[in-house]
Amino acid sequence: MQHSLEALIDNALACHVPGRVVWVALSGGLDSSLLLSVAAPLARKAGVELRAIHVNHGLQAAAGGFETTCRELCDSLAVPLTVASVRVDAAGQGIEAAAREARYQAFATHLSPGDRLWLAQHADDQVETFLLAALRGSGVRGLAGMPSRREWRGIQIERPWLSLARSVLLTEAHQRGLEWFEDPTNTDLAFDRNYLRHRVVPPLRERWPGVAGAFGQSAEWLQEADELLAELAAIDLDQAGGDPGRLRLATLAALSTSRRRLLIRHALERLGIPAPPAARLIELERQLTMAGADRLPVIRWPGGEARVWRHHLYLMAPLSPVDPAWQTAWNGQSPLVTPWGVHRVSLHRPHGAATPALRVGLRQGGESLRLAGRGSRDLKRLLQEAGIPPWQRDRLPLIWCGDELVAVLGIVSAEGWHQSPASPDPEAET
Amino acid sequence: MQHSLEALIDNALACHVPGRVVWVALSGGLDSSLLLSVAAPLARKAGVELRAIHVNHGLQAAAGGFETTCRELCDSLAVPLTVASVRVDAAGQGIEAAAREARYQAFATHLSPGDRLWLAQHADDQVETFLLAALRGSGVRGLAGMPSRREWRGIQIERPWLSLARSVLLTEAHQRGLEWFEDPTNTDLAFDRNYLRHRVVPPLRERWPGVAGAFGQSAEWLQEADELLAELAAIDLDQAGGDPGRLRLATLAALSTSRRRLLIRHALERLGIPAPPAARLIELERQLTMAGADRLPVIRWPGGEARVWRHHLYLMAPLSPVDPAWQTAWNGQSPLVTPWGVHRVSLHRPHGAATPALRVGLRQGGESLRLAGRGSRDLKRLLQEAGIPPWQRDRLPLIWCGDELVAVLGIVSAEGWHQSPASPDPEAET
Repeated sequence: MQHSLEALIDNALACHVPGRVVWVALSGGLDSSLLLSVAAPLARKAGVELRAIHVNHGLQAAAGGFETTCRELCDSLAVPLTVASVRVDAAGQGIEAAAREARYQAFATHLSPGDRLWLAQHADDQVETFLLAALRGSGVRGLAGMPSRREWRGIQIERPWLSLARSVLLTEAHQRGLEWFEDPTNTDLAFDRNYLRHRVVPPLRERWPGVAGAFGQSAEWLQEADELLAELAAIDLDQAGGDPGRLRLATLAALSTSRRRLLIRHALERLGIPAPPAARLIELERQLTMAGADRLPVIRWPGGEARVWRHHLYLMAPLSPVDPAWQTAWNGQSPLVTPWGVHRVSLHRPHGAATPALRVGLRQGGESLRLAGRGSRDLKRLLQEAGIPPWQRDRLPLIWCGDELVAVLGIVSAEGWHQSPASPDPEAET
Repeated sequence: MQHSLEALIDNALACHVPGRVVWVALSGGLDSSLLLSVAAPLARKAGVELRAIHVNHGLQAAAGGFETTCRELCDSLAVPLTVASVRVDAAGQGIEAAAREARYQAFATHLSPGDRLWLAQHADDQVETFLLAALRGSGVRGLAGMPSRREWRGIQIERPWLSLARSVLLTEAHQRGLEWFEDPTNTDLAFDRNYLRHRVVPPLRERWPGVAGAFGQSAEWLQEADELLAELAAIDLDQAGGDPGRLRLATLAALSTSRRRLLIRHALERLGIPAPPAARLIELERQLTMAGADRLPVIRWPGGEARVWRHHLYLMAPLSPVDPAWQTAWNGQSPLVTPWGVHRVSLHRPHGAATPALRVGLRQGGESLRLAGRGSRDLKRLLQEAGIPPWQRDRLPLIWCGDELVAVLGIVSAEGWHQSPASPDPEAET
């Protein structure tokens, strides 16, 4: 068994890119302490730079004990240790999710793109993850659990021991006389994971000693399925126009129900917008199929909104509220900061004439704009013609010179005025 | 709770097509006895013809007790009962799988296409099915478990109570004073399902009372994913030429590894050929990607074979062995029966001339055939030109008139002979 522990590390080291650093995420507990102990001499032999990172969440009285253990272990192995102390903000989410987020934030801070991060999770962790996902009624993504490797913000996250049972690690640790810090909460059944470990997995393993390998195989199939579904969604997104924020309704209508939902979930993921709860997605999907519907009530969920306009489904982060009285001065050159973002556009009169002082405000209704060769035109009409969705029209910066409307930023300029055409989406920079 | 039991039945009855029969699969145990008891008066009220079918597997001493219970229940409810006695042949598979197969065979025998078959499985059965699948390391299909409805050989198989917990059924059965036959093996932990029910699910439910609903939700997501994967595979099959038995290698090569495997599994499913074990599929997939390989060794697995020839992957049921000495007489008109199938082709001389006695045999090598306007041609060359894969060439019926080769059935005829062009694939009818 020692063979497989070391062989897995050697395999992982074999595909190393020179100049990169391998970091071991070290908690001070059994799994990661053993991982560092096994990896240190092998990395040295392979000429790979190995470092350890310990994240101190400061969550329990024992936090100092973990850190001390990490320091002693790294000293004895002559592995450089980085300790990152983080503050866990559990507001709005569970303590475990918040701690995880803080941990990953610390990884992003201390690791460089291209670095590798080794996590000591093993097959029994995967079994628990799988069961927890099923207990939440998760789909493919959730049940797929932890991948053995993935890229995250340029960092290669790897779990070299994901196929090994905890018992293998425990035996090895005892044989080595390894000293680790036993998490005092490990026996606290109030934690779901501990409950599964102590009450549910043992009777499974008693009958099926290979439970960890089997569940791990299932998780791998589901990871593969998840990738395949992403490929299908990418095909459909392409058909729907290629813009995840604006999907052609005709394409959506031609898809099966489940495929339509897949495309919407996929588009939201690309936009970095959380998926709606299942019931909300089904509601959205249902409304889309209503024949002839070209404009629907906004469908909102935490972190996202969906709107239908002119044969397209628009997906977006929630629009911030608009104060219609908002105003500011602008010189026409420096970046224009609005409550909804920064516009990097310049506005000027042609032929290098000096730009007079400008005033920026929002649409109140009734504005008009003098267009070259077309005379004075109704602004509302112009925005419609330009295909600006209604919900964007009230948050477009209108540029005034004295009493004259001279431009709508990123959309149109009055006769005698000119703006650089590229205008970043104000929402995108909020 | 009684409300949901009856409401689910009413919902199922609401979408009934007049003239069809609803069958309840009745074991005599709690679940199906209750299903029949609840459904009988509701079906009567809705004007739906309801029948029960009991399959007696004859597997246990208690089999007679089950049947008696079914007869008494159906008598009391005035529901017609069909008892199908089957023989379970467990050779080559587990007893449970064999019993299931025999049961479905009985359903196919006694039900008519368009009929509906109601199974009493509930959410706890689904939890067990899910766990059993994970313990086998199954992928999406296996974990998706039992669908609430599917079509099988024209029969609508439905599980109206799949969302209900067993406890709901038990409570209702007691309230009704229902009499059912308790399966004496229900407490036998030697059965995997019973072990899960009695040893694994209780600690899960103790902590997560909604375990059945959550697992059921996961199963539903996986059913959806399974359908989506089938859609992706269908897109790729289309690209690969549309024939599941003959996939273009260039298309396969352009796909990602997992998508290539998906397409192969999907094609095999369409052909009714069992999928290879995972390791065998990976091996097949690996060989296909070897650059420039146009012909590979046959890859075999139980129930299937794969061959590569002329830029295509051929998938097929195992070829039956060929006796090269096989011969038979033929009149050129009646269906030609070979050890590999039945050929419905007729062979005749033009202008209605009488067909002389013919002899049918197999290729020995060295044959030639006289073609109209092309003289005598080497048969081997002709078969190559016709694109007949090598493994088919030795099982083509050669038709002789005296010492002259006058036709290769379905492929080519000699000068002065004519055959009806459509020839069914001999393998397809084996």
